[in-house]
Amino acid sequence: MTEPSTGLVAVDAGGTSTRAVVLRPTGRCLGYAVAGSGNPTAVGPDAASASVAESVMGALGEADVASAGIRLVVLAMAGAGSAPVEAQVRLRLTRFGLDVPLSFESDLLATYFSGTHQPDGYAVVAGTGAGAIRVKGGHQVDVADALGWLLGDEGSGFWIGRRVVRAALADLDGRGPATALTPLVLARLEVATPKRPGDRGPVVAVVRALYGGPPVRLADFAGLAFEAEGDETAELILDEAAAALARTLGAVRSPGVAGPVVLGGGILSRGRRLAARLATECGADEVRAVADGALGACVLALRRAGTHVDAAVFEQVGASLSALR
Amino acid sequence: MTEPSTGLVAVDAGGTSTRAVVLRPTGRCLGYAVAGSGNPTAVGPDAASASVAESVMGALGEADVASAGIRLVVLAMAGAGSAPVEAQVRLRLTRFGLDVPLSFESDLLATYFSGTHQPDGYAVVAGTGAGAIRVKGGHQVDVADALGWLLGDEGSGFWIGRRVVRAALADLDGRGPATALTPLVLARLEVATPKRPGDRGPVVAVVRALYGGPPVRLADFAGLAFEAEGDETAELILDEAAAALARTLGAVRSPGVAGPVVLGGGILSRGRRLAARLATECGADEVRAVADGALGACVLALRRAGTHVDAAVFEQVGASLSALR
Repeated sequence: MTEPSTGLVAVDAGGTSTRAVVLRPTGRCLGYAVAGSGNPTAVGPDAASASVAESVMGALGEADVASAGIRLVVLAMAGAGSAPVEAQVRLRLTRFGLDVPLSFESDLLATYFSGTHQPDGYAVVAGTGAGAIRVKGGHQVDVADALGWLLGDEGSGFWIGRRVVRAALADLDGRGPATALTPLVLARLEVATPKRPGDRGPVVAVVRALYGGPPVRLADFAGLAFEAEGDETAELILDEAAAALARTLGAVRSPGVAGPVVLGGGILSRGRRLAARLATECGADEVRAVADGALGACVLALRRAGTHVDAAVFEQVGASLSALR
Repeated sequence: MTEPSTGLVAVDAGGTSTRAVVLRPTGRCLGYAVAGSGNPTAVGPDAASASVAESVMGALGEADVASAGIRLVVLAMAGAGSAPVEAQVRLRLTRFGLDVPLSFESDLLATYFSGTHQPDGYAVVAGTGAGAIRVKGGHQVDVADALGWLLGDEGSGFWIGRRVVRAALADLDGRGPATALTPLVLARLEVATPKRPGDRGPVVAVVRALYGGPPVRLADFAGLAFEAEGDETAELILDEAAAALARTLGAVRSPGVAGPVVLGGGILSRGRRLAARLATECGADEVRAVADGALGACVLALRRAGTHVDAAVFEQVGASLSALR
C-alpha cells in the first residue's frame, strides 16, 4: 500500500509545554517538536497561541513536510471551546500558510487516548489543574472538577503546592507542626531561616514574594511534597490529594462503562506513590499512566481524518512517536 | 474640671466599613460617622483613603468641631505600616484642613482595646481575614496568621466562604455530599438549579460568575454557613474554622500574659456559636466579643494623647460612643 502524501498535525497544548506531531493518516509519525506553555488561562491567549505555532512549525521542519501538504490540524488544549482563543490560534497558523481545517479537542480526552485506543474508559489528570472524564464511543461524555485553582482542581499541583506553602507558614508562625517542608520552601524562595524564635522576617518575606506573582504559581511548590518523602505533613497532603482525585474519578464512574483508567499530568507521572494510592482507591482493573497527551492528540487527529485506530495502529503511532522523542 | 477645647479623631478602617469618632482627651465622644471600606488591600489605597476622609469629615460635622480644633488623628487600619497608603491618607486629610500629626495603628490592636482597657491580653479577629495578637504593656508584641486569603487567614470569612462555594460545587459535580449550602449558593448568584442529573449548566455558571470578580469576594458567602445551621457540611466548616482560630490564638499565647481574650470581626460577632466554640477551645477565663474596633481606636487615640485610660475612662468612652451610634 502506498502511503498518502498528505499529513496531519496533532498538538497537545499543556500548562508547562506544548507538543506538536506531524503524522501520516496511516499513523506513522514524521516530526515532533516542543514549545512553551500552551495554556491560555496560565499565560494568556497570545502567548499560548504563539507556543502552538512554534511547536507546529518545528514539527513540520523536522518532518520535512511543507505546510501545503497538511490537510488537518487537531489541537488538544484546556481552552478548547473558547472562541477568542480559537481565533488567535487560527490567525497564527494561517500566517504560517496553514490555512486548513482546525479541530479543537479536550486536553483531558487527549490524555485518555495517550493510554489506550479503546473507545470506552476514564481519564484522571492532575497537572497544574485536575479533573476526570468518562469516555464513551470515543467521545468525552462526562467531566468532574477541572474547575480551576480558586473553586476546584482538588488534588492538583496548585492544590498540593498551596498546602505545602501554607504548612510551612503555619510552622514558622507557630500555628502548625514542624515540617521538613519549611526549609524546602524557604530555600526555593531564597529566604533565610528565622534567626531566633519569634523572628517574623521569614514569614513576611515568603508572603511578600508569593503575593507578588499570580496565585497559580503556587503549583510550582507541589514537587516539594515529593521531595519531603517521609515527612508526616507532606504525606498527609499527598494522601488527601489521592483521596480527592479518587472522589473526582468516582463522580464520572458509570456502571455502563468499564474500560481502562488512564492517569495523566505532571503530578501523577511524578508522584508514583500518589498514582499507586489513587489506583488502589479507584479499584480499577486496568490503570495506565501517561506522561502527556501527545500520543492521544495523534489518535484524535487520526479519528478526525477517518482512520480507524485499532490496537495495531495505536501501537504504530506510539512506536514511531517514541522514536522521534 | 474644665474640659479642654481640643479634640482627637479616632478611625477604625475595616474591610466592610470605616468608622470615625471625634472625642475630647477626657474620653467623651462628640461625633461619630461611618463610610465605606477602608481596607487598602480590598479596595485599593485610593478608595480606602477616600473612605477614611469621608468618615472623618462626617464625624467632625456631627461633633460640630472645626478641623482647626483637632490635634491628633489615630488610624487603626490593616495597611498600617505601608508608606504609600499612609501618604494617601495624609494627602486626603490635609486637603480638608486636617494638617495634624497622624498615627497609624494595627487594626488588631484596636479590636483588642474595644474589649478592655487592660494593657495585657489577647485578641482574635475573624472578618474577611483572620489573625491573633498578644498585647503587653498596651503594645502588640506578637502576631499570628493575618497572612491574607491566599496563604493564610485560616478560619476567616474568605476561608469559610471559599469552602461554602467549593462544597456546593462538589455537590453539584457529584464529588461531594448533598448539602443545604448548594441551593443557598445558587440563589445568591441567581443561578437556576440543575434541570436533570448531570446538567453541568449550573456548575459552569457559578464558576464563570466567581472567576469574574476578585477572589476575596468569596468572603461574601461565609454567611451562608450560618444560614444553613444544622447542615452537616456547614457545621463541619464552622467547626474547622473554630479549630483554626484556636490554633492561631494558641500561637500567640504566652505563660507570661494572662489577660482577657477579645474576639472581633464580622465572623465572630455574627457566628455566636462559632465564638462560643472558640471560647471553649481556647480555655480563657475571660472572653469578650466586640462588634468592631471603633472603641479601641478611641482608646489608642487617648493613649497617644497622654490620657491614662483606666476602667472609669474606658467606661466613659464606651458609654458616650454608644450614645452616638
